[in-house]
Amino acid sequence: MFHKSVHAQIFQDYIHTVEFPSSPANLYDPIRYILSLSGKRIRPLLVSMGVELFDPSCVQASLPASAAIEYFHNFSLIHDDIMDKAPLRRGMETVHQKWNDSVAILSGDALLVKAYEELAKCPADKLGPLIRLFNRTALEVCEGQQYDMDFEQRDTVTQDEYINMIRLKTSVLLGCALQMGAIIGHADDTAQALLYEFGVNLGIAFQLQDDLLDVYGDPKTFGKQVGGDIIANKKTLLFIKLRALLQKADEAEFVHLLASDVEQEPKKVEKMKALYAKYDIQALAIDQKEKFTAIAYEKLRAIDVEESRKVALFALADALMIREQ
Amino acid sequence: MFHKSVHAQIFQDYIHTVEFPSSPANLYDPIRYILSLSGKRIRPLLVSMGVELFDPSCVQASLPASAAIEYFHNFSLIHDDIMDKAPLRRGMETVHQKWNDSVAILSGDALLVKAYEELAKCPADKLGPLIRLFNRTALEVCEGQQYDMDFEQRDTVTQDEYINMIRLKTSVLLGCALQMGAIIGHADDTAQALLYEFGVNLGIAFQLQDDLLDVYGDPKTFGKQVGGDIIANKKTLLFIKLRALLQKADEAEFVHLLASDVEQEPKKVEKMKALYAKYDIQALAIDQKEKFTAIAYEKLRAIDVEESRKVALFALADALMIREQ
Repeated sequence: MFHKSVHAQIFQDYIHTVEFPSSPANLYDPIRYILSLSGKRIRPLLVSMGVELFDPSCVQASLPASAAIEYFHNFSLIHDDIMDKAPLRRGMETVHQKWNDSVAILSGDALLVKAYEELAKCPADKLGPLIRLFNRTALEVCEGQQYDMDFEQRDTVTQDEYINMIRLKTSVLLGCALQMGAIIGHADDTAQALLYEFGVNLGIAFQLQDDLLDVYGDPKTFGKQVGGDIIANKKTLLFIKLRALLQKADEAEFVHLLASDVEQEPKKVEKMKALYAKYDIQALAIDQKEKFTAIAYEKLRAIDVEESRKVALFALADALMIREQ
Repeated sequence: MFHKSVHAQIFQDYIHTVEFPSSPANLYDPIRYILSLSGKRIRPLLVSMGVELFDPSCVQASLPASAAIEYFHNFSLIHDDIMDKAPLRRGMETVHQKWNDSVAILSGDALLVKAYEELAKCPADKLGPLIRLFNRTALEVCEGQQYDMDFEQRDTVTQDEYINMIRLKTSVLLGCALQMGAIIGHADDTAQALLYEFGVNLGIAFQLQDDLLDVYGDPKTFGKQVGGDIIANKKTLLFIKLRALLQKADEAEFVHLLASDVEQEPKKVEKMKALYAKYDIQALAIDQKEKFTAIAYEKLRAIDVEESRKVALFALADALMIREQ
């Protein structure tokens, strides 16, 4: 079994072999730039771990699939950052900020095509299933991003709608990465489906944990501004649960907090947290997170391979789900 | 041999079988909208004609490839219109105008994925070559668009740079459409390459003709505003040729015309045309157009199939190259 950092190195070595032309610079420089910001490379790791679960000898053959997933992820970051008007990504300027919107649109497009170029290098006998899975996932990620933008404009969003949105926007790509590994590792359909569901449910749990950390995380270790979702009135699971449970007596306070920015109401975060506490929202959200975590673990347990092979995936899931809280 | 309108009907029937989900509406409505504006559907026609040149029995099998090309073309229109801030397309509102930039970015992305979804439906034994050709072409189209935007910011552009830009931005997709047909029709590599070159050179000739019509076309039949390129100081072949030949004595007039809009210089178009006439620019541009047309015809002639099979492609080329002038 490879160690995570070994996987990371093998993948890094592989994508350094992929050449991007020097010209036109405004098309390919932004691609080199976003890929150099690197991030955690969790998705390529999932592809490799998916392969290893079934056939460790196929890891090398899966590297183009890893690259395809990583390129797709970075393409979606470039375009999402335009739509979200985000100035920073991984602590550095976003592509549209450093260049401009047109450059970001077009270099994102080119990176999506490069993802398919990598996909086409995958083992020929697996190409059909890999492309179909990748296409379905790619469309779902677009749908998730659209729902996320739609929800900003809407007054109410249900818990099911929210879970479905985060499933599409972030979780299916994790499931896809794992299943692509499984396909290349010659897993049967049942095992593929279980591993996919492991990834999707883990992804949802991870996103719910992120919502929790945004409110209850340690400012020293969280990375983002704690309370940021509350300040922005983001319709997270906590927000949705509170609104659903809110009693008449607290409605005025809730509406006041939503209508106020931190200039007008410097205690906006504390006061919203007080409402959360009154309705026990943190515990309810933790319940949901644990529900999806449990489903994920159950799916992984149900896969019919030697238990020793699953150790790395259980360890990864544990590591992801017990981040500093 | 099918008649053009028969091809168009078969293709139209096929893409009506491709379903787009109803939700999220802001993702899929813009796709339905741009596809309904339809246009001339020249690229699917080229795929069909490419197949028929070699094996008419494969036309049905090529319909997903036609759809992939047409979706790709419409994806690039949606994104190009954002970058060009174009309010109208085919006489109707552009997607970013009717919705907004974010919707146009994301629905364009989804349409590009849908193109690959169609591609994946092509005959399995041809999938590798089809995807590789499609990917290379898609990247080239992005490169062409980037060069086009870069050239707007540059002072000088050479003729070779300009021809290369229009080759990438518009012509390679025509070559790609024809070659995809050839691949599906079981053509050998030599025949594929000749048909591709026929398409690319015809595309360049067509674009040069468009530059000529923009200056010398009949306002009643041209469709766009005659003189539009001159008004916008667009660096077309005519502009580039004039600048290269311009003598000292005419430089002041040229610089004055470039620095003036039609408010300041109501005779901008006439005066620029007078300079074109002085240096015989129209004839020089026609020479170039005819050079590429001749190369295209030569490539088509060189393909080793029954001459009767080429009649439709020669007729199409003739029809494209003798538009109302």
